[in-house]
Amino acid sequence: MKLITAIIRPERLPEVKNALFRIGVTGLSVHGIRGHGGEPEIIEYVRGQRIVVDFTEKVALRIAVSEPFVEPTITAILTAARTGNVGDGKIFVQPLERVIRIRTGEENEAAL
Amino acid sequence: MKLITAIIRPERLPEVKNALFRIGVTGLSVHGIRGHGGEPEIIEYVRGQRIVVDFTEKVALRIAVSEPFVEPTITAILTAARTGNVGDGKIFVQPLERVIRIRTGEENEAAL
Amino acid sequence: MKLITAIIRPERLPEVKNALFRIGVTGLSVHGIRGHGGEPEIIEYVRGQRIVVDFTEKVALRIAVSEPFVEPTITAILTAARTGNVGDGKIFVQPLERVIRIRTGEENEAAL
Ligand SMILES: Nc1ncnc2c1ncn2[C@@H]1O[C@H](COP(=O)(O)OP(=O)(O)OP(=O)(O)O)[C@@H](O)[C@H]1O
Ligand SMILES: Nc1ncnc2c1ncn2[C@@H]1O[C@H](COP(=O)(O)OP(=O)(O)OP(=O)(O)O)[C@@H](O)[C@H]1O
Ligand SMILES: Nc1ncnc2c1ncn2[C@@H]1O[C@H](COP(=O)(O)OP(=O)(O)OP(=O)(O)O)[C@@H](O)[C@H]1O
Ligand SMILES: [Mg+2]
Ligand SMILES: [Mg+2]
Ligand SMILES: [Mg+2]
Repeated sequence: MKLITAIIRPERLPEVKNALFRIGVTGLSVHGIRGHGGEPEIIEYVRGQRIVVDFTEKVALRIAVSEPFVEPTITAILTAARTGNVGDGKIFVQPLERVIRIRTGEENEAAL
Repeated sequence: MKLITAIIRPERLPEVKNALFRIGVTGLSVHGIRGHGGEPEIIEYVRGQRIVVDFTEKVALRIAVSEPFVEPTITAILTAARTGNVGDGKIFVQPLERVIRIRTGEENEAAL
Repeated sequence: MKLITAIIRPERLPEVKNALFRIGVTGLSVHGIRGHGGEPEIIEYVRGQRIVVDFTEKVALRIAVSEPFVEPTITAILTAARTGNVGDGKIFVQPLERVIRIRTGEENEAAL
């Protein structure tokens, strides 16, 4: 099992969610984050005032999947989240040792 | 050491926190998320308007524990978070390689 | 590659961000959390009313780095986040198996 975290543009969440549902991935968690992605500082001038724009709003999706779903999940996110412009986001894959469904106590594959 | 993430119903947070404190687990982080947990789409009608309810509000708890605390922590969460209805949430267990207390620089077991 | 999560005081975020930028770490995600860090319950009295302060506001930083950046990143956070008072926060280091840049499809070191 893997825990896949995707940082995406907020406006891409509906497309990404639909792409995941289409491949049968329907368990996921979402929360807003602010991020910085390697770009040089953005300087904005608001009424003559120099402002350093540090962070942009992004959405973090966390998806626990069994091995056969890892590649389809990544492909679905890549396709649905990409605009081709800088700032499209990143995908992180981490090991996941154990999953438990609270209602039933089922574990791992049976809990996904 | 493990990092335990529990996605629970927001209204269960006080019970879960108390259950954790009772077994001596007092270090934890909490944030709100929106989640989807495998249920078919919920359709609501608001003044004749069809609305697809995508996400429900949940709370994510993150708890770093040493090995002897893994099972008690999971048991405490299962007992305190369970209502028996769909949507009770999930527990994820991930490897945790290193923990550092910022104030002292202490590491791992000494930092938990 | 590692995923470093730092829980810090919100007012330390600018210093920590600057310390990270100075060592060349510019990819990161930030979100607000509420935390509890092992302290005994804080009891406050508001107009004679006993109030148990459960959680304090913290900021969670998540930073994916390649191996050579692990130690510099930890050192930068420790130095910039520390006040010496209880509640300075914690650093967690987790394994990270794969990173993908959504715009280009680049993976791992090339994606960081
Ligand atoms: N190394 C990292 N660690 C943690 N989060 C990151 C990292 N890099 C990027 N992020 C998160 O991903 C978001 C989007 O990053 P972004 O797409 O700008 O990455 P990038 O590598 O700069 O790619 P691009 O060149 O396409 O902009 C950031 O706002 C941040 O939230
Ligand atoms: N595979 C998953 N990956 C990430 N988060 C998940 C996953 N499955 C569930 N979650 C999170 O847990 C929350 C609760 O899920 P839920 O309890 O509905 O799981 P379930 O497997 O559908 O169990 P039940 O049949 O009891 O409803 C979701 O809203 C979501 O935030
Ligand atoms: N074991 C843990 N698991 C998850 N999060 C934790 C844990 N311990 C602390 N945290 C998070 O870190 C924040 C700060 O913790 P804190 O600095 O009080 O740690 P501490 O171990 O009590 O150190 P100190 O003695 O310096 O107060 C907490 O509010 C919580 O969000
Ligand atoms: Mg970028
Ligand atoms: Mg469900
Ligand atoms: Mg403390």
